[in-house]
Amino acid sequence: MAAMTPEELEAFLAAHFPYLEEGRFRVEEVDDRYLRLRMRCHESHLRPGGTVSGPSLMTLADTATYLVLLAHLGPVAHAVTTSLNISFLRRPAPEDLIAEAHLLRVGARLAVAAVTIFSEGEQDPVAHATVTYSVPPLRWKEKETTEHTE
Amino acid sequence: MAAMTPEELEAFLAAHFPYLEEGRFRVEEVDDRYLRLRMRCHESHLRPGGTVSGPSLMTLADTATYLVLLAHLGPVAHAVTTSLNISFLRRPAPEDLIAEAHLLRVGARLAVAAVTIFSEGEQDPVAHATVTYSVPPLRWKEKETTEHTE
Amino acid sequence: MAAMTPEELEAFLAAHFPYLEEGRFRVEEVDDRYLRLRMRCHESHLRPGGTVSGPSLMTLADTATYLVLLAHLGPVAHAVTTSLNISFLRRPAPEDLIAEAHLLRVGARLAVAAVTIFSEGEQDPVAHATVTYSVPPLRWKEKETTEHTE
Amino acid sequence: MAAMTPEELEAFLAAHFPYLEEGRFRVEEVDDRYLRLRMRCHESHLRPGGTVSGPSLMTLADTATYLVLLAHLGPVAHAVTTSLNISFLRRPAPEDLIAEAHLLRVGARLAVAAVTIFSEGEQDPVAHATVTYSVPPLRWKEKETTEHTE
Repeated sequence: MAAMTPEELEAFLAAHFPYLEEGRFRVEEVDDRYLRLRMRCHESHLRPGGTVSGPSLMTLADTATYLVLLAHLGPVAHAVTTSLNISFLRRPAPEDLIAEAHLLRVGARLAVAAVTIFSEGEQDPVAHATVTYSVPPLRWKEKETTEHTE
Repeated sequence: MAAMTPEELEAFLAAHFPYLEEGRFRVEEVDDRYLRLRMRCHESHLRPGGTVSGPSLMTLADTATYLVLLAHLGPVAHAVTTSLNISFLRRPAPEDLIAEAHLLRVGARLAVAAVTIFSEGEQDPVAHATVTYSVPPLRWKEKETTEHTE
Repeated sequence: MAAMTPEELEAFLAAHFPYLEEGRFRVEEVDDRYLRLRMRCHESHLRPGGTVSGPSLMTLADTATYLVLLAHLGPVAHAVTTSLNISFLRRPAPEDLIAEAHLLRVGARLAVAAVTIFSEGEQDPVAHATVTYSVPPLRWKEKETTEHTE
Repeated sequence: MAAMTPEELEAFLAAHFPYLEEGRFRVEEVDDRYLRLRMRCHESHLRPGGTVSGPSLMTLADTATYLVLLAHLGPVAHAVTTSLNISFLRRPAPEDLIAEAHLLRVGARLAVAAVTIFSEGEQDPVAHATVTYSVPPLRWKEKETTEHTE
């Protein structure tokens, strides 16, 4: 079960990222290690030719990872992205985008998610990203670990 | 339906990559856009402490992508890797590794696959990779090229 | 020698990406395979705590690659990003950011640049990115295509 | 100044990675944050057509990062790769390969290097990689940090 509800996640995002347009992101489904996030299509994110810009897709992948990590850990403000890799697969239509984020690993220090992004109503993905976050210090102070993968 | 059977894929690999140890890789399942590949655990791939080395995991991700692309396109010898991104998630046990490769996109010039790697009998992945291949020249017949890096 | 001057590059950017704030990017130096790009610090790009957001750094890396490719090829409108990998190294100060983009390869189909990003006046980089673009169809004239993702 | 000499680094590698062929890697230059590593060309690393295989290039990038980290920190056995991204730029000739590794960041928990790989005697790179290692636990036990980038 997720540590936070969709409403709590959206409220947290609005409180901590006041520069995001209100209502741009909507959490559609959330579980302990999975989150589906909708990003509304808006003229300012369009590239010439009526497609959604690359930076918008990167922002969506990053935000979806942040939220699925919060859904797993509870409200922690200091998680930060350490790396992001994204492959652009198809030109997105000027529609809402849906990100499906799967937490692959939450360790004492790093968390990794795979994020696949679709245009509303399409089956083939428009982008695939792998995003790594640092887990905030408070977590690893509470924890002994002998893990070597991070 | 896949363009090649597991046996044809293994025979192709042996013929084109004679330096691979015989029997190191086994194709366990194949479909038009999906392939599951087993890599036998062997002492020479172990790191100190009895784990499988990073380069072995990278070789597995790369090979699984190559084979799923062949399964989709049929026997084409000149596909080459243009980029590979891998996140190491957990220390693999000294067991066989299983790669699940999904083709995300096959375009006229590039193909992209997401590959998740598991230790035999484990549920949590040990690595996740995104691999991009160039699609061989024969696919776009208008063009002669001797380039192999893209 | 570069195929376009800093002023031509900035004018091209403004014409093709009307949603970018005017004056946000300034080309400070350009050569055949190198470009230095300044991104003005602006309140809307700041994360809580007064740092520049990850998406702003990704936009900067992507834009610097696009411009160095134009500087090499001349004014071509249809180059598109196929993949972007970024490592966030240090928390950037709320200052202007400077991207140094080096073209590593321009092939018939793909171009790859390495981009290192610094905060104004600092020696240690805040981020390092590798960005791959498709080279526009006009470059290989044998071929008609409407694909834009590769 | 580097914490270890080329000879010490090579001896450390041989002791901890007994499965590497003796003499395959030679440290040609080392500094506190820079290392140049030569990988001998050997028939077993060749792909059909006489080029060096992708996995060999990945092994070289990974090993160069490990060694430059040792050169910075001194002899620590438990550093492990957390992620590796590589772009293949040109088909390497069947010659020795030279990796130039630059440490971009050594934090309390993560270290990141950029590695550019050349064929012996060539000016244009054959590959560019970004490699992230975890810094062994003993380091972060000794250290208080308020850093947020990892």
